[in-house]
Amino acid sequence: MQQQPTLSVSVEVSARHVHLDIVAFETLFGTGTKLSLKRDLSQPGQFASSETVVLKTQGGLLESVRILGPLRDYCQVELSKTEARLLGLDPPIRRSHELDLDGTPGLTIVGPQGEIRLDKGVIIPWRHLHISNTEALDLKLAADSLVSVRITGERATIFENVLVHMHPSFHLSVHLDTDEGNAAGVGMHTEGEILPW
Amino acid sequence: MQQQPTLSVSVEVSARHVHLDIVAFETLFGTGTKLSLKRDLSQPGQFASSETVVLKTQGGLLESVRILGPLRDYCQVELSKTEARLLGLDPPIRRSHELDLDGTPGLTIVGPQGEIRLDKGVIIPWRHLHISNTEALDLKLAADSLVSVRITGERATIFENVLVHMHPSFHLSVHLDTDEGNAAGVGMHTEGEILPW
Repeated sequence: MQQQPTLSVSVEVSARHVHLDIVAFETLFGTGTKLSLKRDLSQPGQFASSETVVLKTQGGLLESVRILGPLRDYCQVELSKTEARLLGLDPPIRRSHELDLDGTPGLTIVGPQGEIRLDKGVIIPWRHLHISNTEALDLKLAADSLVSVRITGERATIFENVLVHMHPSFHLSVHLDTDEGNAAGVGMHTEGEILPW
Repeated sequence: MQQQPTLSVSVEVSARHVHLDIVAFETLFGTGTKLSLKRDLSQPGQFASSETVVLKTQGGLLESVRILGPLRDYCQVELSKTEARLLGLDPPIRRSHELDLDGTPGLTIVGPQGEIRLDKGVIIPWRHLHISNTEALDLKLAADSLVSVRITGERATIFENVLVHMHPSFHLSVHLDTDEGNAAGVGMHTEGEILPW
């Protein structure tokens, strides 16, 4: 019987964050302001900026929400379900890398120089695996397929339906939100295993 | 080949809560005050009270934390990891039904009539399965053994290391914390499946 493949992979937790377009950013931070780099993220070119905003709904406030850079051509807010509930929102689980915002709730984003009202744009990100096209080809993993990832420890957990998100530049890693990371006891250097597919 | 057993089970999310002894309760709410019933919980005799407290640390505040009744002979605070982090705490994962509080962090509990300082008592509850002794015997599930529970849906998840917590009065159900419940998309009427053991 042929042994099915398994693969060790680093597991990263994406804390709540927003993506902004330049109009939104300049409204919040002032015309001509630039997004400043705080820390590079694991995916090439992506970074956590020094700038944070406040999210506001009728239900509550969420402070210190970081802007990820670079700026994009749309606005999107990515929260855990726990955080969404603090704001009185019930966003759907959506693929964070597609512009799939129909039917999602909106909110108000507050910055030091102004605020903007989004009619839509709040999602809970679908758990996903970043992988380069080359690695995916080697491993016979198809784009947009779903795999299962096992994390060991006291809170050992198998996450099913982990979306394979492929791009030539990607560094191999699983991205979970904070609920998922906390549920599975994910720390700073957690490794997971992609189960046989 | 003999088919291994599987078992469908209701999945419930235990929100953050505190257990108090009578001295703590009367300090917080006034001498002679009684805990009042808001809602019965699934386990016989257990209830959510109308009374809530505020949890306070140097790191922050957590409001509207419900007291579960009846009063016990000790104080214990059960939080999700997300909530613990909001307070700047890093509690261990412990069995919530054992008095196993050595090495756990403390905090201040604030009520309408006073406050108390706990030197220890904050835990993240270990995911567990409530089961009656009779059902456990029928199913050949040993007390304190660990089982795996699968939840289906967009956020399909298998939680391993679910502790079998047995008592003659128990109603069959899995208890998760809010991080775990949100990570797996658990709603009001979610069923899980105990995987073959």
